[in-house]
Amino acid sequence: MVKKGFLSHNAMDKIMREAGVLRVSDDAKVALAEVLEQKAILISTEAKKLAEHAGRKTVTEKDIHLANK
Amino acid sequence: MVKKGFLSHNAMDKIMREAGVLRVSDDAKVALAEVLEQKAILISTEAKKLAEHAGRKTVTEKDIHLANK
Repeated sequence: MVKKGFLSHNAMDKIMREAGVLRVSDDAKVALAEVLEQKAILISTEAKKLAEHAGRKTVTEKDIHLANK
Repeated sequence: MVKKGFLSHNAMDKIMREAGVLRVSDDAKVALAEVLEQKAILISTEAKKLAEHAGRKTVTEKDIHLANK
């Protein structure tokens, strides 16, 4: 599991409260950050391939959205 | 689409570079943040239900991991 700490636990806390979670353990925040970072790496890697496939060097919004499908 | 800005564009930039992306547009960072926030809300909502199902008020790491499956 990638664990680089790019996403703050404070951000995870805010997102979970947005989802209606009232009580959350610290390890749950760590777990959510890890899960999201792993997804982000997968999407980014796929988006890079899609940009190259389209003959571009820059990853754009449409690469991210297609990579997420 | 949820767009609350819980995840910074700087964090998205770092994650994308970690994935080997060298050039990225600003709109791609915005898109990645939106996609991740949406996933985070979905996982958090499911994790809350799983915690309640297990008779707990606090969402823990295992709820997050099960919600992500």
